[in-house]
Amino acid sequence: MDSAVCAALAARDYEACALHFSYGQRTEARELHSFGAICDRLKIEQRLHLTIDLFRRIGGSALTDPKIAVPHGAEEIGTGIPVTYVPFRNAHFLSAAVSWAEVVGAEKVIIGAVEQDSSGYPDCRPSYYAAFNELVKQGTKNGNIEVITPLIRMRKAEIVRLGLELGAPFDLTWSCYEDTETACGRCDSCVLRLRAFAAAGLPDPIPYRSRDAVV
Amino acid sequence: MDSAVCAALAARDYEACALHFSYGQRTEARELHSFGAICDRLKIEQRLHLTIDLFRRIGGSALTDPKIAVPHGAEEIGTGIPVTYVPFRNAHFLSAAVSWAEVVGAEKVIIGAVEQDSSGYPDCRPSYYAAFNELVKQGTKNGNIEVITPLIRMRKAEIVRLGLELGAPFDLTWSCYEDTETACGRCDSCVLRLRAFAAAGLPDPIPYRSRDAVV
Repeated sequence: MDSAVCAALAARDYEACALHFSYGQRTEARELHSFGAICDRLKIEQRLHLTIDLFRRIGGSALTDPKIAVPHGAEEIGTGIPVTYVPFRNAHFLSAAVSWAEVVGAEKVIIGAVEQDSSGYPDCRPSYYAAFNELVKQGTKNGNIEVITPLIRMRKAEIVRLGLELGAPFDLTWSCYEDTETACGRCDSCVLRLRAFAAAGLPDPIPYRSRDAVV
Repeated sequence: MDSAVCAALAARDYEACALHFSYGQRTEARELHSFGAICDRLKIEQRLHLTIDLFRRIGGSALTDPKIAVPHGAEEIGTGIPVTYVPFRNAHFLSAAVSWAEVVGAEKVIIGAVEQDSSGYPDCRPSYYAAFNELVKQGTKNGNIEVITPLIRMRKAEIVRLGLELGAPFDLTWSCYEDTETACGRCDSCVLRLRAFAAAGLPDPIPYRSRDAVV
């Protein structure tokens, strides 16, 4: 949902290009389907779909290693870095975006990182993006590309409201870490999303197997 | 040759793991062959070979886009960022190394970046690695991984001498940007390498089509 809100922002304010990754996550095919549908709805023509085999090959995360279970338990959210942490993941996504930006001449890279109401990943903090922008300044041809994180200091309920305002296609998004037809409603990502819609006083348009975890 | 010297250093000082990339560079197969042979010689057992399709798909570099010619002309070296620059390349290599380091528990990532006697790439400067290390500190689970660049301030001739001291397998390395059986002797990479061996007063053990460019 955070990426979809950023995509809606980008489509409103820029000539947007959209980048998607299949990185061995459990819900890879479902997310790719969402990517295409969201771009169609937002009329984003320039798209790049990349496949990264690294994470599946090195393991170390419940999202990419089928031997590590996705945790179900809302009470653990925010108590440390969870097993769904994918080692140094966002650096790969951002590096690809910056490489592509250099070639197409884009000056902004937008990512839907959120610090509060998040699972506690180290690569979702403002200090991480400050460091990344210094790297981009040092390591690119013209030093004129900037990574921006418009949602990073927002609460999830504010993101829902902003998304509605922008016409972000929430009905086409997929957040569940585990299931691909009906969202589980119990993994961190589902719980954070359900809480966000509840706090915003709005219905979440996608189907869930259970909404009990957030009651 | 810089990577091989770093590999020899790593094999001497650490329980080394070796990472290689096929990223659509013209000499991909030749370099992969060198990777295996160098690891065998240095007895590095833990190896990871990754394929990155991004660069070939986005283009923008003479190394990965067959439509852009590899320049031949020693006089242009160091006069700006050359067309062999691959957009934000080292960030991809380093991010993969850091992801792998997190999973295997490695605390050092060694890369053979060289500032002087180089082609003028922005991702070979000390300030770039300082920025990357800040990113690693901010964006990893334990913040205890460090990228080190033992060659960065050395002249190429010093690197040749260090490599000989360490038993770096120069005979197994490949530096040419263009050819895969006999090195061209005319691209930046060949010229910088030939100059290095000449300055060190030592013979370069690999075959060249021509050594005229550096006389």
